[in-house]
Amino acid sequence: MRQMRRKSAQDGPLTDDELTALDAWWRAANYLSVGQIYLMGNPLLREPLLPEHIKPRLLGHWGTTPGLNFVYAHLNRVIAARDLDMIYVMGPGHGGPGPVAASWLEGSYSTTYPDVSQDEAGMRRLFTQFSFPGGIPSHVAPETPGSIHEGGELGYSLSHAYGAALDNPDLVVAAVVGDGEAETGPLAAGWHSNKFLDPRTDGAVLPILHLNGYKIANPTVLARIPREELLDLLRGYGHTPYLVEGDDPQTMHQQFAAVLDRCLDEIAEAQRRAREDGVIERPRWPMIVLASPKGWTGPGVVDGVQVEGTWRAHQVPFKNAREDDGHRKVLEEWLRSYRPEELFDAEGRPVPAVRDLHPAGDRRMSANPHANGGKLLTPLRMPDFREHAVPVPSPGAGAVEATRVLGTFLRDVMRENMATFRVFAPDENNSNRLGAVLEVTDRAWTAERLPGDDHLAPDGRVMEILSEHTCQGWLEGYLLTGRHGFFSCYEAFIHVVDSMFNQHAKWLKTTNGIPWRRPIASLNYLLTSHVWRQDHNGFSHQDPGFIDHVVNKKADVIRVYLPPDANTLLSVADHCLRTQQYVNVIVAGKQPALQYLAIDEAVEHCTKGIGIWPWASTDDGVEPDLVLGCAGDVPTMETLAAVEILRGYFPDLRIRFVNVVDLMRLQDDREHPHGLSDAEFDSYFTRDKPVIFAYHGYPWLIHRLTYRRTNHDNFHVRGYVEEGTTTTPFDICVMNRIDRYNLAIDVIDRVPRLRTIGAHARDRLRDQITEHRQYVRTHGEDLPEIRGWVWSGGSGQSGQAGPVTAGADPLREPEA
Amino acid sequence: MRQMRRKSAQDGPLTDDELTALDAWWRAANYLSVGQIYLMGNPLLREPLLPEHIKPRLLGHWGTTPGLNFVYAHLNRVIAARDLDMIYVMGPGHGGPGPVAASWLEGSYSTTYPDVSQDEAGMRRLFTQFSFPGGIPSHVAPETPGSIHEGGELGYSLSHAYGAALDNPDLVVAAVVGDGEAETGPLAAGWHSNKFLDPRTDGAVLPILHLNGYKIANPTVLARIPREELLDLLRGYGHTPYLVEGDDPQTMHQQFAAVLDRCLDEIAEAQRRAREDGVIERPRWPMIVLASPKGWTGPGVVDGVQVEGTWRAHQVPFKNAREDDGHRKVLEEWLRSYRPEELFDAEGRPVPAVRDLHPAGDRRMSANPHANGGKLLTPLRMPDFREHAVPVPSPGAGAVEATRVLGTFLRDVMRENMATFRVFAPDENNSNRLGAVLEVTDRAWTAERLPGDDHLAPDGRVMEILSEHTCQGWLEGYLLTGRHGFFSCYEAFIHVVDSMFNQHAKWLKTTNGIPWRRPIASLNYLLTSHVWRQDHNGFSHQDPGFIDHVVNKKADVIRVYLPPDANTLLSVADHCLRTQQYVNVIVAGKQPALQYLAIDEAVEHCTKGIGIWPWASTDDGVEPDLVLGCAGDVPTMETLAAVEILRGYFPDLRIRFVNVVDLMRLQDDREHPHGLSDAEFDSYFTRDKPVIFAYHGYPWLIHRLTYRRTNHDNFHVRGYVEEGTTTTPFDICVMNRIDRYNLAIDVIDRVPRLRTIGAHARDRLRDQITEHRQYVRTHGEDLPEIRGWVWSGGSGQSGQAGPVTAGADPLREPEA
Repeated sequence: MRQMRRKSAQDGPLTDDELTALDAWWRAANYLSVGQIYLMGNPLLREPLLPEHIKPRLLGHWGTTPGLNFVYAHLNRVIAARDLDMIYVMGPGHGGPGPVAASWLEGSYSTTYPDVSQDEAGMRRLFTQFSFPGGIPSHVAPETPGSIHEGGELGYSLSHAYGAALDNPDLVVAAVVGDGEAETGPLAAGWHSNKFLDPRTDGAVLPILHLNGYKIANPTVLARIPREELLDLLRGYGHTPYLVEGDDPQTMHQQFAAVLDRCLDEIAEAQRRAREDGVIERPRWPMIVLASPKGWTGPGVVDGVQVEGTWRAHQVPFKNAREDDGHRKVLEEWLRSYRPEELFDAEGRPVPAVRDLHPAGDRRMSANPHANGGKLLTPLRMPDFREHAVPVPSPGAGAVEATRVLGTFLRDVMRENMATFRVFAPDENNSNRLGAVLEVTDRAWTAERLPGDDHLAPDGRVMEILSEHTCQGWLEGYLLTGRHGFFSCYEAFIHVVDSMFNQHAKWLKTTNGIPWRRPIASLNYLLTSHVWRQDHNGFSHQDPGFIDHVVNKKADVIRVYLPPDANTLLSVADHCLRTQQYVNVIVAGKQPALQYLAIDEAVEHCTKGIGIWPWASTDDGVEPDLVLGCAGDVPTMETLAAVEILRGYFPDLRIRFVNVVDLMRLQDDREHPHGLSDAEFDSYFTRDKPVIFAYHGYPWLIHRLTYRRTNHDNFHVRGYVEEGTTTTPFDICVMNRIDRYNLAIDVIDRVPRLRTIGAHARDRLRDQITEHRQYVRTHGEDLPEIRGWVWSGGSGQSGQAGPVTAGADPLREPEA
Repeated sequence: MRQMRRKSAQDGPLTDDELTALDAWWRAANYLSVGQIYLMGNPLLREPLLPEHIKPRLLGHWGTTPGLNFVYAHLNRVIAARDLDMIYVMGPGHGGPGPVAASWLEGSYSTTYPDVSQDEAGMRRLFTQFSFPGGIPSHVAPETPGSIHEGGELGYSLSHAYGAALDNPDLVVAAVVGDGEAETGPLAAGWHSNKFLDPRTDGAVLPILHLNGYKIANPTVLARIPREELLDLLRGYGHTPYLVEGDDPQTMHQQFAAVLDRCLDEIAEAQRRAREDGVIERPRWPMIVLASPKGWTGPGVVDGVQVEGTWRAHQVPFKNAREDDGHRKVLEEWLRSYRPEELFDAEGRPVPAVRDLHPAGDRRMSANPHANGGKLLTPLRMPDFREHAVPVPSPGAGAVEATRVLGTFLRDVMRENMATFRVFAPDENNSNRLGAVLEVTDRAWTAERLPGDDHLAPDGRVMEILSEHTCQGWLEGYLLTGRHGFFSCYEAFIHVVDSMFNQHAKWLKTTNGIPWRRPIASLNYLLTSHVWRQDHNGFSHQDPGFIDHVVNKKADVIRVYLPPDANTLLSVADHCLRTQQYVNVIVAGKQPALQYLAIDEAVEHCTKGIGIWPWASTDDGVEPDLVLGCAGDVPTMETLAAVEILRGYFPDLRIRFVNVVDLMRLQDDREHPHGLSDAEFDSYFTRDKPVIFAYHGYPWLIHRLTYRRTNHDNFHVRGYVEEGTTTTPFDICVMNRIDRYNLAIDVIDRVPRLRTIGAHARDRLRDQITEHRQYVRTHGEDLPEIRGWVWSGGSGQSGQAGPVTAGADPLREPEA
């Protein structure tokens, strides 16, 4: 361990007693952290350390932990002094031993996990269970009281913190940003969250950039630029930064306490000005830079190389404490340097001077209900979505922008829940046709406003920044602290947050197994501007694969919906907003499109999740010649058009039309709770008839979901096969062979009795494809009979357009 | 259009003639840009605009385009004046009309696409083809001469620019960063790339932050913070920023020209100091902030609302030019404001004063070979990977860290290609055991260095920053400009760049269809610290789904390899480094693991991509009772151990052991060029016998790849089913039922003749699982017979450990 310098403490706000007590708490937390990493016996060092006291596999991260503990100790001081409502987001979440130690010292750990009692036996259990089979994870995981941020994947601490602070005007979120984490893109983007925080109606975030100096193997960038350059950067992020730098604990305690007081004073003053004086301006929020040695207070030189203050302190500083007597001696000296005999009594309980050094009850950060958001969750007050229903006098006519209808419903949800519901979008809320929400609120914006700005206000509830990462992080933080939200995004670019989704889905899966974690509201995605309507932006904007990514996660936390029209979208959205502990993915287009189901039919269809549409079928309820299946709005339209074509050519053909809204219905009921039984599945798709299935996304997903089904060998799936460019909407369908003509050809090729008699039709359909391609290349738009196509009630003739309804031009409007 | 202010030009470096000429070129580029968005006839406005001259669907983005053109014009001036080697990366890639116009003015467009000639007919074609079916995309796509950056997904311009500049000491990469793009995480992280650029051996990047003011619907954050705060931010990023702000073209020309000269002087001086004076310090590289109105020079007020200088100028400023006479009049006035009669001659050719305002030949940014990197590509000089082979005296023994062996090969590749090969990792190069490369080079680092730092140097060739985005962006920029690279990453966190991978794969797919685009080197991923060895970091670090994501892309650009040991990893890596136009994904563990194949066997196995391992099989070459398949290192080991168990219980059981290295061999040869024919597939997996397949990743991917195969219904796949925590390595296998015991039970359950006679064995195996779980929860490590297990040559007995080779403890070492 380091020799502490004999330098006396600088002047500061702490009395000698306070300083002594604070340092004792810190030493206790550090002792307990080292114990968790190394020990499985002899927790109080009642005897010399022996090999059997050391865990056989040493796992954990020491380097960041003393810094996290240092901050924790100081936060506890100010929480108690100011009666603050505060939670602690630890970016370097691999420093898991720290908050576990703190929770144990605060008593909340033993309350949550009674077998880990606040005594010697509990301390042994505390040590042994860490990163041990059957024990607890090494990170600040859902198992850790007080955590909303696992921190295993670096980058999301700031956006989580800001999400937690929204609409919690009395909350202060302390957020440690590791200097490694600070190199990630999502973190770098997250700094600008302060332009979206209202000092009047939101809480505060106190970022603490921990200049720990090193990552796993390298120095950190921010630690290796001149301090003044770093401070410029942080000022450029809109903060007033305060630097606390050093390694002498006494001095650092005084300095940090002084700076922390100053920051909290500034936060309080900024909030007072906004709330009492009515000042509307963005405060230059304070923040702290804590520059301290990596592995602070840990061993200095081991085996002849420097450990403290280098990357070698990142994980377990030395590995052979079980086998190597020398290493074990270093460990024992290290542990004893914290003077455990002063910190714990004969029973292993923290001595009163340590045990009482924390706020009481829910003010303890490890027991703050904001960090177990389900405790605070109240259901949304839900307006009746039926009031927004689109009239559908006959199925397959009309031209409605489904997401615009959804926007009016979301507006009413917003109006009824103005303190607990927000919508999030990367600069796409209006582009995604959800603009109606701006009738009751604004876009959050505390940066400069100019005349002519459109619905910008500090207390706006529409969160827009051109960063999917930041939107997702805000939303996660908002949900994890017990509120509700809705994220709309261009379909292709939701992949930007694939990895963030992973972490959230894992968090949900884990919390399902933790009784004291209360359920939180689901994370709801609307994916729009989807693959079939990127005629404008082209190939780079086409990727329907987020669904594939999502369905790899545990079935009990993911749901996928493909409503084919506005009323089904309303029904699905209403359902999703009421759910808890899921990630709901809704895919729906924003362009004018045909409508199929009146609202009662839509509700029934969505409740079942899959259904035969009798008006589009010709099997009269008996065994059909084939099944035409579809999922997604454009595939549904093309499949219907294929029915019309086929009926024109083959009036006797018995077609069953099946539409799927809830994608997981296709999966086996043993795999997913929404899955159909095999018998149910067969009742839709038959046991032996050809099935032509037009699917919104990559076609193989349908095979993946259905490969165990009786009739799977007869499934022929069309979908997006990664063909695209800037062209017309219908041409994109043709390029991927999911258009009406190709679907009709697929039927002819696969229904045995059509193979011969359908030769003429097949030739004519191929000609139509050629004619279409020639037409669009000359005229720059789709054929009028394509643009104006509506479902004719089944009376349409092959190759002839149905009646064109005035204004029905669902394929005309390009994407924004 | 705006009324230009009557203010006279400020003093500046441009003579009146230069200014006039520069402005004329800019007007020409703007005219051609507007023409592309709106017109399909009457390109020179020889007659009043009529409805039939207007495209029926108006698609494109005007807002950013005049700014891109402005910069282009000025860059051309300095390229010519200084004989610069320069390329232009346009972050707002949706401004596609701009660089297309520039290329046409420079003549390179007509050289590349002879049907788009430099005359009136060509201009009409230029206009019509833009965002038109059969034409060109709306973005700065691969089809655009001079582009290495499509820009459709925002965020990657800076990291692409830096990647291009590496090892190109004479190159200057001008990179326009949109202020919308600047809000993204990847872009925000990319600024710090300047700490990795060596002024001596690398080229320069000149960032130009374009404060255009607005996104689709919102103002931008950086445009709405005080300018001094913005300049602090940019100084904090390590730059010397120069602001050029205004809307009067004459003034702006002078100011921009002056600032551009100053920046290039500073770049030249920084490089001179490094190269001639030997100064080793990070320059404060200059950069420009260009604040100009969105849609600059476009229509001001249309339909009573302000367009220029607002978000309404983002795309097509007004939509009804075909139908609405008023709109059409606005368009005509707008076009005529550029005075096309001064810019183009009677034949539609640019007049000489415009046509000659560009550098010559390869100095034209639209013809610079760095932007068609395949032209500059030279194959790597490849050392013999066989020299790094691990001796394998008997299969299934030994304990070797495969990636450490790979590291020695990569070291030799590096040594032989010190100007054209780099390795990239997010702070994980050593953690991933590739440390040997540091024997011949260092880590790139131009930030501060301290005594004790480990292999940091300005000209280091190991690129490490804790940002997968930045690593990926650098590598893409490096590859696109004709060099080679290798990216190693923790498997779970490669999902961070899912969307970047998408864009690169789409770029490759598109360039395969563009004859003038020369092939570039493949993008090679090594995914390690994989799902089966996250016993340390736990659940948040477990996700093998990147493979699933990759295989959604076009078969002709993606390859996936799962080498089971060190020698196969060598062979695969050697192959991948020689390929072009692919994304190669290699998954391999970094922990001590068993070795199976001597180097010649490894080469043969990898060449086939799939193989029966006779020494692990008991079918004597006749039809087996079952097939045990596997892919991935840990699944291979567990499957082998299962063979041993089964042989102990059922000595007569005919087992065929099949290992898959090249995952795409499983797919149909009609789907993927590496796919096996059905007959070949059946020759491995039989037509009707049970197949138990242990797969590295999510098990359903194997079903997706094989669902069309004859014997698919008999496939039973084990893989990662999203179960994990911090526990022992073997316990993670058990949690996901891919361990030896569960695999053996699967065999007993699925081979008909074992179902009854195997009852005892099944019970015993279940007991062993229970015993294992009890043991690890007590001892914190796996049973000795698990930790020390090696393949016994097939003579092992059920429930008994094979001989433990000294030092062979493949499951002991935790992840770093």
